[in-house]
Amino acid sequence: MDSQAKLNNYLNENFDRIVSMLQEWLTIPSISTLPEHAGDVQRAAQWAVERLSAIGFPEARIVSTAGHPLVYAEWQVDSQQPTLLIYGHYDVQPVDPVHEWSSPPFQPTLRDGYIYGRGASDDKGQIMLVLAALEAWAETNTTQPVNVKILLEGEEEAGGAAVGDYVLNHPETLRADAVLICDTHMVNAGQPSLITSLRGILYTEIAVSGAKTDLHSGSYGGVAPNPLHALCLLISRLKSEDGSIHIPQLASAIPAASLTEKQFWQEDPLHIQKELLVEMGVNKMVGETSYPPLERIGLRPTLEVHGIRGGFSGEGAKTVIPARAVAKVSLRLPANLDPNEVFGWLLQAVQSNMPAGYQFHLSNLHAGKGISVNPDNPYIRAAAEAVEVIFGTLPVFMREGGSIPIAALFDEVLQVPIVLLGFGLPGDRVHAPNENFSLDQFRKGMKTVADFLGRIRHSKP
Amino acid sequence: MDSQAKLNNYLNENFDRIVSMLQEWLTIPSISTLPEHAGDVQRAAQWAVERLSAIGFPEARIVSTAGHPLVYAEWQVDSQQPTLLIYGHYDVQPVDPVHEWSSPPFQPTLRDGYIYGRGASDDKGQIMLVLAALEAWAETNTTQPVNVKILLEGEEEAGGAAVGDYVLNHPETLRADAVLICDTHMVNAGQPSLITSLRGILYTEIAVSGAKTDLHSGSYGGVAPNPLHALCLLISRLKSEDGSIHIPQLASAIPAASLTEKQFWQEDPLHIQKELLVEMGVNKMVGETSYPPLERIGLRPTLEVHGIRGGFSGEGAKTVIPARAVAKVSLRLPANLDPNEVFGWLLQAVQSNMPAGYQFHLSNLHAGKGISVNPDNPYIRAAAEAVEVIFGTLPVFMREGGSIPIAALFDEVLQVPIVLLGFGLPGDRVHAPNENFSLDQFRKGMKTVADFLGRIRHSKP
Repeated sequence: MDSQAKLNNYLNENFDRIVSMLQEWLTIPSISTLPEHAGDVQRAAQWAVERLSAIGFPEARIVSTAGHPLVYAEWQVDSQQPTLLIYGHYDVQPVDPVHEWSSPPFQPTLRDGYIYGRGASDDKGQIMLVLAALEAWAETNTTQPVNVKILLEGEEEAGGAAVGDYVLNHPETLRADAVLICDTHMVNAGQPSLITSLRGILYTEIAVSGAKTDLHSGSYGGVAPNPLHALCLLISRLKSEDGSIHIPQLASAIPAASLTEKQFWQEDPLHIQKELLVEMGVNKMVGETSYPPLERIGLRPTLEVHGIRGGFSGEGAKTVIPARAVAKVSLRLPANLDPNEVFGWLLQAVQSNMPAGYQFHLSNLHAGKGISVNPDNPYIRAAAEAVEVIFGTLPVFMREGGSIPIAALFDEVLQVPIVLLGFGLPGDRVHAPNENFSLDQFRKGMKTVADFLGRIRHSKP
Repeated sequence: MDSQAKLNNYLNENFDRIVSMLQEWLTIPSISTLPEHAGDVQRAAQWAVERLSAIGFPEARIVSTAGHPLVYAEWQVDSQQPTLLIYGHYDVQPVDPVHEWSSPPFQPTLRDGYIYGRGASDDKGQIMLVLAALEAWAETNTTQPVNVKILLEGEEEAGGAAVGDYVLNHPETLRADAVLICDTHMVNAGQPSLITSLRGILYTEIAVSGAKTDLHSGSYGGVAPNPLHALCLLISRLKSEDGSIHIPQLASAIPAASLTEKQFWQEDPLHIQKELLVEMGVNKMVGETSYPPLERIGLRPTLEVHGIRGGFSGEGAKTVIPARAVAKVSLRLPANLDPNEVFGWLLQAVQSNMPAGYQFHLSNLHAGKGISVNPDNPYIRAAAEAVEVIFGTLPVFMREGGSIPIAALFDEVLQVPIVLLGFGLPGDRVHAPNENFSLDQFRKGMKTVADFLGRIRHSKP
């Protein structure tokens, strides 16, 4: 039996146990953005350390930070071999609206070939398939085929600074020949893909104040400032119904795409638009009709309002004009733009468009640059080959609309190829109720990563 | 000692005890719009029944309804005397944002001549001063000067149907020669006023749906419908920055004001605008600049958004595009308009202005007509005389921006004069944190009502 067959054999025979371990990890509600879950985030990190030690990593430890902890592990096997740095995040998104989940978000459940639970796909499930591949190498070969470093963070969903600080302050610890990130999704189950770009993100909060206290809408309605109305006016001015964003500097800063890419977006040979409509459950897309939908997700900037707080929005009726209201607004940005510079542009746009009679404060909650990868290197070629062997289909190279700010930092600090090899599917409902991960993708993902690890032996430049 | 002196004497001597009783009532959190407080609403009703019995009302009882209970009491003294029906509400508004209260909303506190607590002014405090006046008559004269009927409801702040149903189904029980409502405020402490009109109210909820599930703003941003954005666009189209409301039928339905009133609004001899600015803590008013501020509060319609629910608006960051969002929107309306007819107009306006790609549902949470009173009758004249005697100043006749829907129903069913004699002040912060009531107003209010009761003897037509 050759090495690949042994690995696949091991992974098939141990599949149920590996899924059980994932279920165990998924029961820990490591919601990084909610302070009351800080203990759970810590527990999820500890769980990962124990798993890495069990696999055989000589070094596996918690790295304390000002925020949630990092997990760092290292297995040096041969200085002649390349070193792969693997990144993932063990924290998860909040779960509201919780009543829309078919099974409780932290009671992971197997149904019809899928595992349901918060973090199943984003990102515990994808870390788990990497851990399974590493375990398979350790058990069938007593070692790893290359030097492996692992860095897991617990603040990805909260835009925390800990991992960024660590990367900036410990470049030597993290020195590697390539970075592997399994936190993205494929086009669909039949069409694997590798990601060549990620959008950047700027997440802000706009607080608007009017009167010094909440007011009665009868006694003051007609003369009182209403910060909720001001936010509606402002947001409608920042983004029109047709999806166009009114931040003047932004329009001229969008990079041009290649003709090949434009053609791909226009022709949509993989029928991605049709799948998007099914996933969203709508007949018609909303957004900039002058650009193809794939370009709108892959390259164009977006501005979204995620929530508005203030006044009274519970059951029943309260006739209040609130003194203050807050909107959460984020932008996705092409990889060439610096989100912190865009923050300045947004600030100007908010200043210009804020109705008269209000004070406002714009906060930069977090900002992460996008990334654009040149696929012409041995690590990405090895990933494409591993995908072809396991999935039976050559992967396509895609732009991804989401953001992994740390990828941009790895790019900047380590200056090595970044392999964005994710096994999620578009229907995984990440960040939404009923998040799930296909068990078939999970199985193929383990095998692909195991195969990839073998393929990059002797790739050291 | 004449009757008036005896009454005033009694009220002065018993003032502290009466304030203590109010404090006791204010500790009961009778928030009618929150289901978890249903038991408290019931307790507050029971408290009122016990107080009325203690004063000497031969009949004082709870009236069960499909919603919160009513309190009914009656004291028939002489069929040759007129009958006064007194209305008030013992329920209160919610208290959020609770951290903005200087003392807990249900631990009523005396500070610097004011009593602070939810309901201090709206409306337990104002009912309490009426009860004190009735007690003074009972204690100093062993009876009441006129026949008195009392109807207190527990759903005023929730727009409940119970009191309306009761009025429609029991017109004979409630038959009276005049109605007294103490649930309004004066121009200021030095300028008493009587109310000649109240605006109507229409309180609605607009629910907007986009995709079938919450979506990740990275993977779907650019093509996904965002119901929060749709609500911002819609609300900005329903009401412009200049305060104009875009419901076409509404513009032509606003009644004309008299020349005297227009002049009063324009000249603002009582400097009400200046006081409004101080109360709101702003330099400039927001709203329709082509109308004087007093007309905007007194007669013009308003449209206010009270809250927007959907997505994620807590601490931290969540990059969600919600599947659904809900806005609470109310209109204040001139007395001539039927709010249920206006609901149809609003529905058309929402239909015309809703962005493409969304489903919506508009709900009529509650609707109450306004009222316009002709002040030329013996009961309102008696109220004006009582005010002049106790406050030392003739009251002005004012339009009030708030709504007391039951007043319109009394007008329609009983067809008798409605005396809107309130002792609140504009700074009472009703519906807001730190609601309070001036103890001086409370004292003068008791005496004014006691004097008024004596004055309407022999007024029976």
